[in-house]
Amino acid sequence: MAVTNDTTNVEQWGIFELALQGSAEGNPFLDVELTAQFTHKQRIIEVDGFYDGDGVYRIRFMPDTEGIWRYSTRSNLGELNGVEGTFTCIALGADNHGPVRVFNTYHFAYADGTPYKQIGTTCYAWVHQGKKLEVQTLETLRNAPFNKLRMCVFPKHYAFNENEPEHYPFPCLSRGSSKWAGSWQGDQNEGWSFDFSRFDPAFFQHFERRVADLMALGIEADIILFHPYDRWGFSRMDAETDDRYLRYVVARLAAYRNVWWSMANEYDLMRSKTLADWDRFFRIVQESDPYQHLRSIHNCFEFYDHSKPWVTHASIQRSDLEQTRTWREQYKKPVVVDECCYEGNIPQMWGNITAQEMVHRFWTGTVYGGYVGHGDTFLHPQDILWWAKGGVLHGQSAPRIAFLRRILEDSPAAGLDPLDHMSSFLRFGHIGVGQSHDYYLIYFGPHQPAQIKINAPEGEQYNGEVIDPWEMTITPLKEPIVGSDIGGITVPLPGKSYLALRMRRIR
Amino acid sequence: MAVTNDTTNVEQWGIFELALQGSAEGNPFLDVELTAQFTHKQRIIEVDGFYDGDGVYRIRFMPDTEGIWRYSTRSNLGELNGVEGTFTCIALGADNHGPVRVFNTYHFAYADGTPYKQIGTTCYAWVHQGKKLEVQTLETLRNAPFNKLRMCVFPKHYAFNENEPEHYPFPCLSRGSSKWAGSWQGDQNEGWSFDFSRFDPAFFQHFERRVADLMALGIEADIILFHPYDRWGFSRMDAETDDRYLRYVVARLAAYRNVWWSMANEYDLMRSKTLADWDRFFRIVQESDPYQHLRSIHNCFEFYDHSKPWVTHASIQRSDLEQTRTWREQYKKPVVVDECCYEGNIPQMWGNITAQEMVHRFWTGTVYGGYVGHGDTFLHPQDILWWAKGGVLHGQSAPRIAFLRRILEDSPAAGLDPLDHMSSFLRFGHIGVGQSHDYYLIYFGPHQPAQIKINAPEGEQYNGEVIDPWEMTITPLKEPIVGSDIGGITVPLPGKSYLALRMRRIR
Repeated sequence: MAVTNDTTNVEQWGIFELALQGSAEGNPFLDVELTAQFTHKQRIIEVDGFYDGDGVYRIRFMPDTEGIWRYSTRSNLGELNGVEGTFTCIALGADNHGPVRVFNTYHFAYADGTPYKQIGTTCYAWVHQGKKLEVQTLETLRNAPFNKLRMCVFPKHYAFNENEPEHYPFPCLSRGSSKWAGSWQGDQNEGWSFDFSRFDPAFFQHFERRVADLMALGIEADIILFHPYDRWGFSRMDAETDDRYLRYVVARLAAYRNVWWSMANEYDLMRSKTLADWDRFFRIVQESDPYQHLRSIHNCFEFYDHSKPWVTHASIQRSDLEQTRTWREQYKKPVVVDECCYEGNIPQMWGNITAQEMVHRFWTGTVYGGYVGHGDTFLHPQDILWWAKGGVLHGQSAPRIAFLRRILEDSPAAGLDPLDHMSSFLRFGHIGVGQSHDYYLIYFGPHQPAQIKINAPEGEQYNGEVIDPWEMTITPLKEPIVGSDIGGITVPLPGKSYLALRMRRIR
Repeated sequence: MAVTNDTTNVEQWGIFELALQGSAEGNPFLDVELTAQFTHKQRIIEVDGFYDGDGVYRIRFMPDTEGIWRYSTRSNLGELNGVEGTFTCIALGADNHGPVRVFNTYHFAYADGTPYKQIGTTCYAWVHQGKKLEVQTLETLRNAPFNKLRMCVFPKHYAFNENEPEHYPFPCLSRGSSKWAGSWQGDQNEGWSFDFSRFDPAFFQHFERRVADLMALGIEADIILFHPYDRWGFSRMDAETDDRYLRYVVARLAAYRNVWWSMANEYDLMRSKTLADWDRFFRIVQESDPYQHLRSIHNCFEFYDHSKPWVTHASIQRSDLEQTRTWREQYKKPVVVDECCYEGNIPQMWGNITAQEMVHRFWTGTVYGGYVGHGDTFLHPQDILWWAKGGVLHGQSAPRIAFLRRILEDSPAAGLDPLDHMSSFLRFGHIGVGQSHDYYLIYFGPHQPAQIKINAPEGEQYNGEVIDPWEMTITPLKEPIVGSDIGGITVPLPGKSYLALRMRRIR
């Protein structure tokens, strides 16, 4: 069978999909091998296909270059083998900037060069909540500041999370208890059993629709491949099943340009996995993903060694964001503090900081040269907490985070790098980021200086603005900040805490 | 010459002083050796005397036991040798609890057993400001919550500190510049010279009068023996002068029961001293002090190794008070974070935190099992900043620190030790201190739980109170907190940040 698709147009970093009919006999998930080579001029990219149930096999491909692409399939199933064709990759649309990549060592940019200033949030299990709530979540996200969302493939068993998902990733053979027993380490999957030799395509079709929904909103999907909050047994599958699952997810999802791969949430709580397992998972994803989407792994207590070559950026859970600069220097990679506690009022300490503190932590992570993640965890009569299930935001930090995002998007494309706070420019230990001789952003946190001294070089001149991150105001200083080689210039400030000073070069 | 003082009464931990006339020829500071043995029953304590100028030699002694004490002097100056006598040590007065000692590994108590809950402040150079300001400082202290004050022997050269003291510890031979040149590392003592072979008794008479003034107010004097803020050369004396200075200070001051010895402030900024010098200073003070007053050393960046045996407690400069528990465990000694930034509005980051933040840091240090110090640094037209010169307090933290002191003084005598925050008692990671089965103090900082869960043992019952450290209110919970072996009890809280919960056992 030979198919020609040469009238098909796919925009750059869009998805080309080839659907093929084939035999459904036996166990196609195990038995059928299917790959395709996509060729553009001298480049050949090989991608894996996957079985999508009902005798349908699919191959997805994300072209990164305009022009005509040819493809050719290979399979051990005759009717899937040797299928050939072409499609045309056309210019990208207005809201498509391609996948996000590491940029300038410590930062991110879209593939088209547009800077990407990570402003994350967390809805771990939002795709497992049913249509009504999922649609509401998307509506909330449409008006929220977030350009990345952390979400799990597997359903979640945890405090406030007892409900069953509509679908499971594997066919369910027998159902067990849904009761939350105050543990989350995958111990009590009595009664539950699954056919781990097959996937449930309905689960993944639903999951990838939600990834596409986020793509349409311009939100990166930080897809969490494993996690410990489990009553079904998904955190304790054998190595063969783990690996097949990873390859299947990558084959289905890698062509979505907004995908990031997070090997795990709180990997260090998964007692049945070893460090060697995590290394292997990284390598499988690295080998299988033709597009080299971002890869990370998220800790509870102990950090994974983020300096390993397959890690693209550090994904961190910690409250002491003052360490961000140290982690940058340690790993020489972007640092994303995905969990620095959530705004909320639940009993758990990780989920009950104030909006003021959440905003403060976003600013702190920023001025130490990193990126921060948000979550919203308010007690709710139906246990609908944004952090796990989505729905609506109950906190007050989101508009302030939107304000910060606008400031970041208005900052130098090269990224905001820590200033030497003991330098003569910033005497007195103030904490700031910027690009020298161009742009400075200094944040004072709980400090309330009535004045500071700036030693800008002679001949340089800056517009100074006092930023109030909570009130969301930007107030220009009366006088420009003029460089002077002798003694510096005293800059009057309001003597109020939790303010920032922005300096933009005018001369 | 034999003197009998058997009609003299000295209260326990008061000062017995023997003044002797002798030759003033030559250099008595270098030439004359003078010691005395004080004997009570089987105990003999040897103390050093000192030359106080004008042919007057003194021996001071602090008796620790009631009853008749005999003494006998020894000297290489005939008229000072072999002086003998007695005095009677009587019961201590109402406001005298003796010197402060380490108690229960991590805490302090007065020698009479009264718990001492350290609430420190900082007036580094207050004794060098002249009578008017010094009297005002004492008046402020009379109404302030502080029971310890950090103060330097040597005058101070630093930002906001250009004024000359009335006296110097050594006779001044020539005067130099007083100008603050933006440095403080003892580089520019051009013009200044002193006769380091002699002390100026007037300087020390004045200094010890101020120590006595503090004693009368019930305030411990944390005497800083060296510091780097110097334009006179006192930070770069030779080893022989350093050692003689230490022995002289100890001989004069050790009999004051409120003395603590701080080897240095920011010892690690004193470029002319080595770690071996600091070890030697500790050993000299340890050998010379008959009463073994508390000994510590204060860092700027790098900690001294506080586990060395001559260090009685860790004196720390750091802002991350969450580490207090770690330092306790590391050193197995009391931890006093003497400098965690000061309340103020100066440009320097170490001197411009808000009152709210200062109060928060006091509470944070407390619930991690340590003790905290205060300072007040507001811009002042005459550069009178409390942290250096004393005067009056301009901040708003002191009343709140007084409130905390009352809470601490109403807490268990054994001290407040960190609770295992991952224990079943405090699920969810709350931070608290207490004594098990008796008293718990939990502080929430920027967290705002609307409820928490407490797993007190079955049969125990506690009065719960919500403490607002800023508003200084204590609000009893409506219901007692009742122990239960099954699932714990949910304690409703206001869902507001910067609150504490106190639980006191009632059954």
